[in-house]
Amino acid sequence: MIDKLIQEIKKKEAPIVVGLDPTEKLIPDYIIGKKTSELGETLEAMGEAIWEYNKGLIDVLYEHIPAVKPQIAMYERYGIPGLIAFERTVRYCKEKGLVVIADVKRGDIGSTSAAYADAHLGSVIVGGKIYKPFDADFATVNPYLGSDGIMPFVDVCDKEKKGIFVLVKTSNPSSGEYQDRLIDGRPLYEHVAENIAALASEHMGSSYSYIGAVVGATYPEQGRILRKLMPKSYILVPGYGAQGGKGADLVHFFNEDGLGAIINSSRGIIGAYQNEKYAQYGEEGFADAALAAVKDMKEDIAQALA
Amino acid sequence: MIDKLIQEIKKKEAPIVVGLDPTEKLIPDYIIGKKTSELGETLEAMGEAIWEYNKGLIDVLYEHIPAVKPQIAMYERYGIPGLIAFERTVRYCKEKGLVVIADVKRGDIGSTSAAYADAHLGSVIVGGKIYKPFDADFATVNPYLGSDGIMPFVDVCDKEKKGIFVLVKTSNPSSGEYQDRLIDGRPLYEHVAENIAALASEHMGSSYSYIGAVVGATYPEQGRILRKLMPKSYILVPGYGAQGGKGADLVHFFNEDGLGAIINSSRGIIGAYQNEKYAQYGEEGFADAALAAVKDMKEDIAQALA
Repeated sequence: MIDKLIQEIKKKEAPIVVGLDPTEKLIPDYIIGKKTSELGETLEAMGEAIWEYNKGLIDVLYEHIPAVKPQIAMYERYGIPGLIAFERTVRYCKEKGLVVIADVKRGDIGSTSAAYADAHLGSVIVGGKIYKPFDADFATVNPYLGSDGIMPFVDVCDKEKKGIFVLVKTSNPSSGEYQDRLIDGRPLYEHVAENIAALASEHMGSSYSYIGAVVGATYPEQGRILRKLMPKSYILVPGYGAQGGKGADLVHFFNEDGLGAIINSSRGIIGAYQNEKYAQYGEEGFADAALAAVKDMKEDIAQALA
Repeated sequence: MIDKLIQEIKKKEAPIVVGLDPTEKLIPDYIIGKKTSELGETLEAMGEAIWEYNKGLIDVLYEHIPAVKPQIAMYERYGIPGLIAFERTVRYCKEKGLVVIADVKRGDIGSTSAAYADAHLGSVIVGGKIYKPFDADFATVNPYLGSDGIMPFVDVCDKEKKGIFVLVKTSNPSSGEYQDRLIDGRPLYEHVAENIAALASEHMGSSYSYIGAVVGATYPEQGRILRKLMPKSYILVPGYGAQGGKGADLVHFFNEDGLGAIINSSRGIIGAYQNEKYAQYGEEGFADAALAAVKDMKEDIAQALA
């Protein structure tokens, strides 16, 4: 799957992933209004609103981007109807040829991580039948529990040709509280990165590993070091745009081959219609506004990399 | 909610929580057979089998235990039907007066952690209506992202009178890879514990805080130190029984008032009927076998604490 991700990034000339993180504030009012008229003020109405919003975005964006990253928390927040919208979104994106990175940040002790890996990347057997419950292409994984928590995901990736991005240095302001603390003179995130690099070298696609890392765009200096520490890992870079990361900050996340990083933007793309810069599209033009924002983001990154 | 947990622990004389972690190996074959006959070899059949198994356990156990801890991964593994069984289980346990600790180990950047907190402990508003999607009493939280990831849960706990258990030292063999690494001469888990202790002192029930910690029974020496570091926090202790922790190991997790810890057992209780010791109950007596195992566990812990 890492090979497909790289192929799509090259084909679409876009090392970017759009975060499908629908919130009540981002979904156009007219969609929520329509669904609550039909289904009442219910979680089901919100699930349907999320799905209509996502489908509108995907139908316009899929030819221009290689991948999407739905953040499951935004769906889980609406309970079962929200999670049904998550499942539909993952399936629809895959039908459209998009690579789907499920931002689930799961991680637990061995047998429990195995259950999460089956749920999001793998399959379960009922009697003689095989089901793939959520069936994303990649998942994000939390490393706090150590390799027990990560290896069950790697095992499923080996079998299903999928991949993971392990949290190394996250984009949020308090990420340093534990991640930056020095252990034997080096920050914790570098120790995590070294373990990922070792694992990555044993789990390779054609040119890159399917064991990647998450490093926030908001920490470009750390990105430079981590890029070198994990030469064969793709780095998923959140924090561009709404969280404050800029194109110029991103250069060091890439290798000299121009590959090795994929930059995420969520609100900056899917909520572009609310931004003054794209206001001419209006609420009903939310997907076209998102496409304009994608093109601007591609340009910003291309200039930074030039 | 921490006050209710303590009250139930005292009333039932049982500082224990039963892990409702249903797997295909643990659910009696006759239940799975019945459901797949009715619904085919489907995820829906597994969701219904999980629910019937859980309901059978709860109906026999609820008068003898203060709390349950469903591990959401075991439900998520069966996709939407599994998560429906999770939701039904949480609601039913609460109807029966049990305290529900949702073992979700969520944690993300601020706005995303807020969405998880709303999903599992809080509420969401649709138009003029309020919904509580999963509505557990406590949730487990991963600290890797720092306080940004934890505070949205604390805010919801303040508002909804609920609580959290933050992962400090987990029960799995590789937990030491990062958690035990020395920072300024002390292991990472002690730093996490100190931050929890500070937070706990500001978020108190009558005698204990509703900000607790997870410390594995498999690490009794660390338990002793962590007990003293977090005097006002309840410690949720997984790893008893099937993972190797014994009653005698548990003493140091408790304070001198005999409170401060709640010991989890999952497979050892819900799968007791598969254990030679309780084989006389047979498959159809799975719930009675679980009750016998609960009574033995209570006795083991009471002896250790005596």
